[in-house]
Amino acid sequence: MKFSQIVNKLKTNQIGGLKDYYLANDPEIECGASLELANSRQVTFLEKDNHLKRKLSESNAAAILLPHQQEFLNIIGKEDIAWAVFDNPKLAFTEVLEFLSPAIIYPEETHPSAVIDNDVILGTGVFIGPNVYIGKRCHIGNNCIIHAGVVLYDHVNIGNYTELHSNCVIHSGSRLGNNCIINSNAVIGSEGFGFIPTNEGWKKMPQKGITILEDNVEIGSGSTVDRPAVGETLIGAGTKIDNLVQIGHGVKIGKGCAMASQVGIAGGAQIGNGVILAGQVGVANRVHVGDRVIASSKCGIHADIAPGEVISGFPAIPNRLWLRCSANFRRLPDIAKSLRKLNRE
Amino acid sequence: MKFSQIVNKLKTNQIGGLKDYYLANDPEIECGASLELANSRQVTFLEKDNHLKRKLSESNAAAILLPHQQEFLNIIGKEDIAWAVFDNPKLAFTEVLEFLSPAIIYPEETHPSAVIDNDVILGTGVFIGPNVYIGKRCHIGNNCIIHAGVVLYDHVNIGNYTELHSNCVIHSGSRLGNNCIINSNAVIGSEGFGFIPTNEGWKKMPQKGITILEDNVEIGSGSTVDRPAVGETLIGAGTKIDNLVQIGHGVKIGKGCAMASQVGIAGGAQIGNGVILAGQVGVANRVHVGDRVIASSKCGIHADIAPGEVISGFPAIPNRLWLRCSANFRRLPDIAKSLRKLNRE
Amino acid sequence: MKFSQIVNKLKTNQIGGLKDYYLANDPEIECGASLELANSRQVTFLEKDNHLKRKLSESNAAAILLPHQQEFLNIIGKEDIAWAVFDNPKLAFTEVLEFLSPAIIYPEETHPSAVIDNDVILGTGVFIGPNVYIGKRCHIGNNCIIHAGVVLYDHVNIGNYTELHSNCVIHSGSRLGNNCIINSNAVIGSEGFGFIPTNEGWKKMPQKGITILEDNVEIGSGSTVDRPAVGETLIGAGTKIDNLVQIGHGVKIGKGCAMASQVGIAGGAQIGNGVILAGQVGVANRVHVGDRVIASSKCGIHADIAPGEVISGFPAIPNRLWLRCSANFRRLPDIAKSLRKLNRE
Repeated sequence: MKFSQIVNKLKTNQIGGLKDYYLANDPEIECGASLELANSRQVTFLEKDNHLKRKLSESNAAAILLPHQQEFLNIIGKEDIAWAVFDNPKLAFTEVLEFLSPAIIYPEETHPSAVIDNDVILGTGVFIGPNVYIGKRCHIGNNCIIHAGVVLYDHVNIGNYTELHSNCVIHSGSRLGNNCIINSNAVIGSEGFGFIPTNEGWKKMPQKGITILEDNVEIGSGSTVDRPAVGETLIGAGTKIDNLVQIGHGVKIGKGCAMASQVGIAGGAQIGNGVILAGQVGVANRVHVGDRVIASSKCGIHADIAPGEVISGFPAIPNRLWLRCSANFRRLPDIAKSLRKLNRE
Repeated sequence: MKFSQIVNKLKTNQIGGLKDYYLANDPEIECGASLELANSRQVTFLEKDNHLKRKLSESNAAAILLPHQQEFLNIIGKEDIAWAVFDNPKLAFTEVLEFLSPAIIYPEETHPSAVIDNDVILGTGVFIGPNVYIGKRCHIGNNCIIHAGVVLYDHVNIGNYTELHSNCVIHSGSRLGNNCIINSNAVIGSEGFGFIPTNEGWKKMPQKGITILEDNVEIGSGSTVDRPAVGETLIGAGTKIDNLVQIGHGVKIGKGCAMASQVGIAGGAQIGNGVILAGQVGVANRVHVGDRVIASSKCGIHADIAPGEVISGFPAIPNRLWLRCSANFRRLPDIAKSLRKLNRE
Repeated sequence: MKFSQIVNKLKTNQIGGLKDYYLANDPEIECGASLELANSRQVTFLEKDNHLKRKLSESNAAAILLPHQQEFLNIIGKEDIAWAVFDNPKLAFTEVLEFLSPAIIYPEETHPSAVIDNDVILGTGVFIGPNVYIGKRCHIGNNCIIHAGVVLYDHVNIGNYTELHSNCVIHSGSRLGNNCIINSNAVIGSEGFGFIPTNEGWKKMPQKGITILEDNVEIGSGSTVDRPAVGETLIGAGTKIDNLVQIGHGVKIGKGCAMASQVGIAGGAQIGNGVILAGQVGVANRVHVGDRVIASSKCGIHADIAPGEVISGFPAIPNRLWLRCSANFRRLPDIAKSLRKLNRE
């Protein structure tokens, strides 16, 4: 695709905020690449104040999407390279990637090897791949894509335009909204880990609740979202969850959250809106985490956190305090030595 | 189901220890719910000394299962609400949930899409779902439930009344007891991570051992239990394991343990009976953890732990000590400052 | 197999470095076992300077593979037990395990229930199990083994002698080398976790890159390796990855690394050659970890690490320093108390 065609499309899709552009020799663009690796048939981008800006003059890209800063144009100008300037060049780059390799269109079809049980209702435009199993009385919305090997237990309800990747499993009674993506081998709505100690060992609490994912939720590969004994496990609209994350039974997660890989949220915890949990964070049973909290990686959250806090460490404390404590942690041998010396004196 | 019917059933099943009850207007009960959310067609419960007791007077539940404390009856009495009193109301609640929505009965049947290899022996009453594969010379006990997409490699041996959820995989030679539950996408008996450094890189140690799960073991969704080079990986009777847990090759786990999500137990570790590991705990290679040890979340166990210890932190130390150390960790900047001041003086 | 036959084979396979042997009554060997558990029909081994050497005199093994140390022969000699001496008895033991139970030979066959999509190219000697799905234009090398329930999306390219275990999923465009092993329920090449914050919530960055595994790579059960927005996620030749590991989008891993279970590597990190990461280690976005770095369990790597470093803790510091800091951490209550006393004085 010619760079001029890309620019024309970006004029229509104003998500990145196109401000200006220069076509140079209007290069043919094949795909996107990183600033350091892009070649003369690739487009790249540079974020505002990104550390890669010192690499700009060395880039071999055919075209660059830039933030609105004159210094970059000065550098680029010497190279006679095509460019376009945006309020948010990274957002513009997402559009360009979609122009260059649009998502595959799946036909309306059910592969003959798929097993569709009794009383299933399928919307229009649904693709069902090989070796899928859809249980009794499931309801699948329009334009859903269900890849090979997916299993839906009975009574699952799925909205429109939702995509289920291969070998994920959706358990009985789960309700998924529109435009959700469940990645491969994720498990939604499996029974919560609820056991009561008795003299005869662990007695299982039946897990009769359900799991609900609102619209635009994404669940990463291999992640697990349990259902509770009663009531619901709930993941709010627009929340994005990475791979190998555990969401315990009865957890409520707000809207627009992001949770990185290997996060674990124990049963009954409540997470607000816009919360960001970095990799390997843990949240204890029934803890409340306020709106817009940011927890850095490996953080262990044992008690309620007020909205807007930025926290770190285990147990979690304010990030700024934690940075100072960690700096002193590595000085502990010196601190101990200095103290012994003082004591001797 | 009428509350009177529930009470009658509870008189027979004495697991919760029914002491007394009051039918009020004998409400029709549809299902269970939490104390805060229960409505006039739902039953709920309150545990002894639970923090929810202050919500009791506000509950809209149709009926409440209570511990044996007069104060609760005084509160409830004003509402003319149905109640029953138990030694252990939470245990009684497990029974009630089962009365209200009994487990699905699966018929004795093998779905025509399932592939059963040579010389497989199936017990009576076995359900085998769509797209299952059962390898050569497997032996499946009576009344097992094998959901869609499950794979058993060759020579797997499974007891009676065991349930395998969708897309879990059981590797060659594994032996599962009676009444086990393997949740979706779990992997049992895969080859252990055994490599020897050589000048030509990592040389694989063949993993020729097997994995054994005794009776009443549950394995969570996405969890992995490896087999060893020689001998056995063993999980004792009644042990319950949550989602995304790793059990390394040659690990021995005792009876009646509980391991929360994302626990990792490295190869050759030995865990006693009745051990409780909270979320994201790690246990190092060949460590011995004594009976009834309790490890709090994110604990890192690097050395042997005596029976009955309660431990925390990384490396793990006694929980009480760890609480005091953690409290001082966040005072480290002040400690360092105070020390500098003393040194100046 | 007679011990004399084993010794004869070991003379040919000189991987362990056979030095000497004694057949005693040339016992019949059935399989391998650990030193403590081996019985009179089993062979075992002892590593140099291993803690098990004090158990040597009590072993009931039929035959023992030993390091080149006279003290062991003195102990063994009294028992009239068969033995063989090696430069590396553990390596020799790997050979013996393979002699005693050779890997299963899978026939060239495609199970009738497998679904092979258009324009797939299969090499010779390929085994494809039940309920496998292979997407459009995939290319499978010679002698590959693809177990039941595996899913390959379109355009996957796999080398020779690679084995894919049940229910693993390989996403579109992934390229796997020769002699790779992908264990059960692993996911290769799923879309990276790339989202950009906007006023309308998280905007997905299309993940158009691919994932490449070079020769002799092994990926553990349930592990996930994401593909990036542009370019490649790369795992170098001979790198071994354990169960439930997360490899983020665009990560580059060198050759001959080993990563234990539940390690998480965030997007864009670069790991050198011969790096060893113990269980539950985390590596932050875009960090560079030098060649031959060793990180102990639960380590959190937030900044670049120079080649050859041995690191521990969170944030990661040199292992020796960390050991001293941790020792003082548990003395923090005493340190604080001592400081208060000094301040009073």
